Amino acid sequence: MVTQSWNRRHIISLEDFQPAEYDTVLQTAVSFQEVLSRRTKKVPTLQGQVVANLFFESSTRTRSSFELAAKRLSADTLNFAASTSSLTKGETILDTAKTYLAMGTDMMVIRHREAGVPQAIADEMDRLQSRVGVLNAGDGLHEHPSQALLDLFTLCTTLDAEKPRLSLLAGKKIAIVGDILHSRVARSNIWSLTASGAEVHLAAPPTLLPKLFANYSIPRGMEGWEDGHSDRQLFLHWDLEPALRNADFVMTLRLQKERMTQHLLPSLREYHQRFGITSDRLKHCHPEVKVLHPGPVNRGVEISSELMDNPKFSLISQQVTSGVAVRMALLYLMGSGKT
Amino acid sequence: MVTQSWNRRHIISLEDFQPAEYDTVLQTAVSFQEVLSRRTKKVPTLQGQVVANLFFESSTRTRSSFELAAKRLSADTLNFAASTSSLTKGETILDTAKTYLAMGTDMMVIRHREAGVPQAIADEMDRLQSRVGVLNAGDGLHEHPSQALLDLFTLCTTLDAEKPRLSLLAGKKIAIVGDILHSRVARSNIWSLTASGAEVHLAAPPTLLPKLFANYSIPRGMEGWEDGHSDRQLFLHWDLEPALRNADFVMTLRLQKERMTQHLLPSLREYHQRFGITSDRLKHCHPEVKVLHPGPVNRGVEISSELMDNPKFSLISQQVTSGVAVRMALLYLMGSGKT
Amino acid sequence: MVTQSWNRRHIISLEDFQPAEYDTVLQTAVSFQEVLSRRTKKVPTLQGQVVANLFFESSTRTRSSFELAAKRLSADTLNFAASTSSLTKGETILDTAKTYLAMGTDMMVIRHREAGVPQAIADEMDRLQSRVGVLNAGDGLHEHPSQALLDLFTLCTTLDAEKPRLSLLAGKKIAIVGDILHSRVARSNIWSLTASGAEVHLAAPPTLLPKLFANYSIPRGMEGWEDGHSDRQLFLHWDLEPALRNADFVMTLRLQKERMTQHLLPSLREYHQRFGITSDRLKHCHPEVKVLHPGPVNRGVEISSELMDNPKFSLISQQVTSGVAVRMALLYLMGSGKT
Repeated sequence: MVTQSWNRRHIISLEDFQPAEYDTVLQTAVSFQEVLSRRTKKVPTLQGQVVANLFFESSTRTRSSFELAAKRLSADTLNFAASTSSLTKGETILDTAKTYLAMGTDMMVIRHREAGVPQAIADEMDRLQSRVGVLNAGDGLHEHPSQALLDLFTLCTTLDAEKPRLSLLAGKKIAIVGDILHSRVARSNIWSLTASGAEVHLAAPPTLLPKLFANYSIPRGMEGWEDGHSDRQLFLHWDLEPALRNADFVMTLRLQKERMTQHLLPSLREYHQRFGITSDRLKHCHPEVKVLHPGPVNRGVEISSELMDNPKFSLISQQVTSGVAVRMALLYLMGSGKT
Repeated sequence: MVTQSWNRRHIISLEDFQPAEYDTVLQTAVSFQEVLSRRTKKVPTLQGQVVANLFFESSTRTRSSFELAAKRLSADTLNFAASTSSLTKGETILDTAKTYLAMGTDMMVIRHREAGVPQAIADEMDRLQSRVGVLNAGDGLHEHPSQALLDLFTLCTTLDAEKPRLSLLAGKKIAIVGDILHSRVARSNIWSLTASGAEVHLAAPPTLLPKLFANYSIPRGMEGWEDGHSDRQLFLHWDLEPALRNADFVMTLRLQKERMTQHLLPSLREYHQRFGITSDRLKHCHPEVKVLHPGPVNRGVEISSELMDNPKFSLISQQVTSGVAVRMALLYLMGSGKT
Repeated sequence: MVTQSWNRRHIISLEDFQPAEYDTVLQTAVSFQEVLSRRTKKVPTLQGQVVANLFFESSTRTRSSFELAAKRLSADTLNFAASTSSLTKGETILDTAKTYLAMGTDMMVIRHREAGVPQAIADEMDRLQSRVGVLNAGDGLHEHPSQALLDLFTLCTTLDAEKPRLSLLAGKKIAIVGDILHSRVARSNIWSLTASGAEVHLAAPPTLLPKLFANYSIPRGMEGWEDGHSDRQLFLHWDLEPALRNADFVMTLRLQKERMTQHLLPSLREYHQRFGITSDRLKHCHPEVKVLHPGPVNRGVEISSELMDNPKFSLISQQVTSGVAVRMALLYLMGSGKT
């Protein structure tokens, strides 16, 4: 396997990812997808290495995906779940990470409800001159790079299954619909999709796409944007239809039910009426349009149940499948610099 | 290993199991029991395959037994526990199962508090034309086939350790004692034991063995049965003694303590006095009688503490040991059709 | 690997450990530490064997350390956490252990909030003539032998990295500071350190080092001791300074915050002022003094944050690293008698 253009020990954010890096991830993931099509879906790549899944925020889907990716690379895995941990005993997060370092962990996959925790742990690992790689599996409202990379892989393999590459998306119109304000998935996707040369259209109720967005400076210069504003390839819409018009892909985002109690939304029903994706609404899009969702889906809220199960439009299962191959690629690439 | 008479991808219920299928399970389990007697108790049979234990209802014993069976076949395992899952995030059970399918799971072992969930998942897997096998590890009050099969293996190997087969039980008298109304273990055992030609005697307080039993149509035609009724090989008793008389085996069932608060039982003490199994009560049975219990046991309730620890009568440890071999056999057989 | 002087199937307490046994553990751990420095940190020693981690009391650090040790010996592991277990269903602890025995577990690592549970399980395993080894991973206020052995390994390798041996500590002054009354770590360390010929100085507020200590008869004859009492190599202090004076090593103990609500301590702040270890206070010690802590640390309570991060003094990371090597050694030694 050729590992061109890869010099990262950590994967925390896509903000400074270079096109060649995206392409390296895509090509490496293609190789691992081939492994996953064999009867024995396992390679000895990380034999004897330890991947610690430190999930300070609970998750089944992402944790299982990383665990499976690690096991298929023959790594040993350690799982840490906040609820049963020493955290309740008052230890700091950095001390927990240093404990896993001292035990001999080679890579740490970290999810935390606070933005910045994976970066802080990565900095500490570097300061201690360890060779441990840190992968951000979702930090607060900041980023979720492995999700955006598996989304990218899903999009690109739809266009060219054997040679997915960033440039395939140049000029495509991609709508991201939903709670963009609170979505680390959206934030990471915006970096990768704008890097590809796609036109990215964000559609959300104004309460879920306000100026606050600029807090995370994605993208820079977006401060004060309102409905209809646009910059380079990024467009904001407070209504769904202009975002869907001729769209090649529609990426829906999970809606947290607590947004209602926070008075950001009137009701799930009204949300679905205005922003829910249905087969009927896809008529505004390109005839070959495909729909994505990072899961878990609230059926009948972000997306209609009927559309979700329609393989003609839905790429949701492919996203999950891509997730294992892309995470194998990321763990492989992070470990590739070590000899 | 010869795999005769096996065409099932899923193991959900024993209702339609054929004698040749029971014998295939018994013979395959004998082979794996031999593996378990070696120093290195492991075979490469399922190397590179993934067994997902989806336990929507918590369990240590059954989950550990399946996990160990999978590991001894060299499979990778993924554990899902409802408490830490996306279920709290509103995803449907079928969507959870489809996520594990999309990740590349080869077999799913499913426990759920609702009857019918494993069947629904199996149907969905088939509808999607996947090759995933689904094994019911206990669904509501419906069935728990792997428990009944390990019980069958335990009974048959007691009679012929090297060649256990269904026909060994023909004409034997087997008492099943306890909370039959709420027992999925009893329901699965009734299918296998009546298939063997044994006489099955059910003994329980009337509140734990009422007409409601017929809700699950096991066996058909049992509607309206009362004390003393019998049909073919199945007999009902509201007292313990007629069930124990000359019995070759006594299978006790776990009593859920919540039955008291539901006013189905006066007290644990009174239950033990009327239906608890003790060495003294075994005098009614065949001199070589053996006692079983699916565990975990409430000592001094279903069975006296002294009897439980008496290796002359108790097969409880053997049941646990058989469990690993039988579950290895089931996973092996489910996987054997795939090439 | 030479396994001299080893005849134990179980490791429950260090009370009757012989010098040759300590040295066997230290030398075996050196070999495994060498394994851990390789790229592929894994040996096939326990291939096909099963190590069950039965943690009736929750723990991340110790459980992960044992799990990693077992995996690096190529054993399969089963994890049991009290919260999701049959214990809530009324099964006794011995019955739980017997279930894991019947499943084919080779070694059990047990933590329980009650002193004596690991011994009771070991006795039951022997009574049943099983070959299962039991390792106490912390039982109530009694002992935590693997922690004391990893502490010993850390101390001795500081003095001679390649040939750690018990006699290196003869004549050294070692202070143990903190909540000695409630510390199973202290109890196990007192056995190993006094066996080495070191001078052991215990320093604690009187409420955390009272006559109650003698309840656990460590050491025998300590009943009625007060400030300034001493016996052979063991010295008690109600103030910190006499314990630190010229000390070669300072072992700090974790302070449970519930001690405050139990009225055993006025405040964390006052505790830190009187017994917290800081760089400044180390001036009383030997210039080469090193500080240990079993973790997790309450920064600014038992030890100052600045000192904890100072590699010149702190051995805390080395303790964690030693933990994996020492636990590999213990599992290896326990399994070495089996053929």
